[in-house]
Amino acid sequence: MGRVYIVGAGPGDPELITVRGLRLIEAADVVLHDRLVPRELLARVKPGALVVDVGKSPGGVGPSQEEINELLYKYAQLYDVVVRLHGGDPLVFGRGFEECEYLVARGVRCEFVPGVTSGLAAPAKYYIPPVVRGTASSVALVTGREEPSKGRRQVDFRKLAGAVDTIIIYMGASAAGEIAGELLAGGLPPDTPVAVIKSAYRPDEGFLETTLGSLGPVPSPSIIVIGRVVERGLALWSRRWW
Amino acid sequence: MGRVYIVGAGPGDPELITVRGLRLIEAADVVLHDRLVPRELLARVKPGALVVDVGKSPGGVGPSQEEINELLYKYAQLYDVVVRLHGGDPLVFGRGFEECEYLVARGVRCEFVPGVTSGLAAPAKYYIPPVVRGTASSVALVTGREEPSKGRRQVDFRKLAGAVDTIIIYMGASAAGEIAGELLAGGLPPDTPVAVIKSAYRPDEGFLETTLGSLGPVPSPSIIVIGRVVERGLALWSRRWW
Repeated sequence: MGRVYIVGAGPGDPELITVRGLRLIEAADVVLHDRLVPRELLARVKPGALVVDVGKSPGGVGPSQEEINELLYKYAQLYDVVVRLHGGDPLVFGRGFEECEYLVARGVRCEFVPGVTSGLAAPAKYYIPPVVRGTASSVALVTGREEPSKGRRQVDFRKLAGAVDTIIIYMGASAAGEIAGELLAGGLPPDTPVAVIKSAYRPDEGFLETTLGSLGPVPSPSIIVIGRVVERGLALWSRRWW
Repeated sequence: MGRVYIVGAGPGDPELITVRGLRLIEAADVVLHDRLVPRELLARVKPGALVVDVGKSPGGVGPSQEEINELLYKYAQLYDVVVRLHGGDPLVFGRGFEECEYLVARGVRCEFVPGVTSGLAAPAKYYIPPVVRGTASSVALVTGREEPSKGRRQVDFRKLAGAVDTIIIYMGASAAGEIAGELLAGGLPPDTPVAVIKSAYRPDEGFLETTLGSLGPVPSPSIIVIGRVVERGLALWSRRWW
């Protein structure tokens, strides 16, 4: 019986995976990966290793989570080193935890290898700190998704509005306008600075600076950063001359 | 004029630095490091490279932030590749941003290299996810520190109590009891599960499972995780047999 390593690939730059994550890819008999992990990492597998894309296309086409769980279980019967490679960190809005629950219930060993999460690394590319002395002492990482079949958002953005200094939203691209409305209703000023980073560290990267009052739907996948840190970060970014 | 790379060393395990972070250490002419970065990483510098400890001991003895800024500036005049190595991520409760502000104002190039932040990686070691479907959709990363010379905490824990599902506290060890009191006053139930991870990924690592109602001061440095995810993570952890 093999062992499954649930590994974070980091935010998109192939050099931002951990040393341990890269070593496991190189040692793996099989790598099951999300759609958005860097191709350069998949090229590092040893000769003869299997590389299996279990990601979903933007239309949602791809194996279900149940099918991925079952694949992981099956490969763990066949191979010694199974790597499940998630974009970012496997436990921050990935499904790594559920995969490990499934495996442990069936007697398969699994282990988490953290990765740099995109919600923190994407703004760092533009010098935007999630927290910084004098401007922000707290940051919330949240999902913009609705609860399946309930039609309401998983996060209460009205309550969140006054409770933390910085809000970083994952998977909120299409709902960005509605979420902004909830945050405004919760008391955040319309001039609250917002940064949107699309596909950070990838060739199709994009960046938008706006305000909460002007925020509408943005392209997917994007990380949305809301708070005064945006202003302070971009002030530094704009003073770079290189 | 050299360039300063403000690099995250990750949570303590030398293999949890990024590939890029390690390459920069190996290329550096000088590395200025926090007290808690792994020794194994400092051993990777090239022959003749300077390694300078700018960390503070628990009693607060060590160079001031102003002195560190000035050192970075001076080394950037003398060397090509200057690495400033922070524990965890340089922008998550580190002083990396202020260092870069100082340098850019004086015409020195600086760049951030993210690291895995301890607040997310320490609980992952015990299979505790910051967020997970069905249990938590939001996580706040916050400091437990008080504002300098104001005698009040930087974060309003009463407001935070009902606003996010998981709360992860950095630098809250000595104030843990008081913070728990504020969260209880904010409406969190006394049986809310709490995990304390001391010195994660280090030889003196320690772990404590408790509840919000029983939380008192804990040893420093510790990461404190509050929320139902603790229960779910530890249930999985306890089913491991390896």
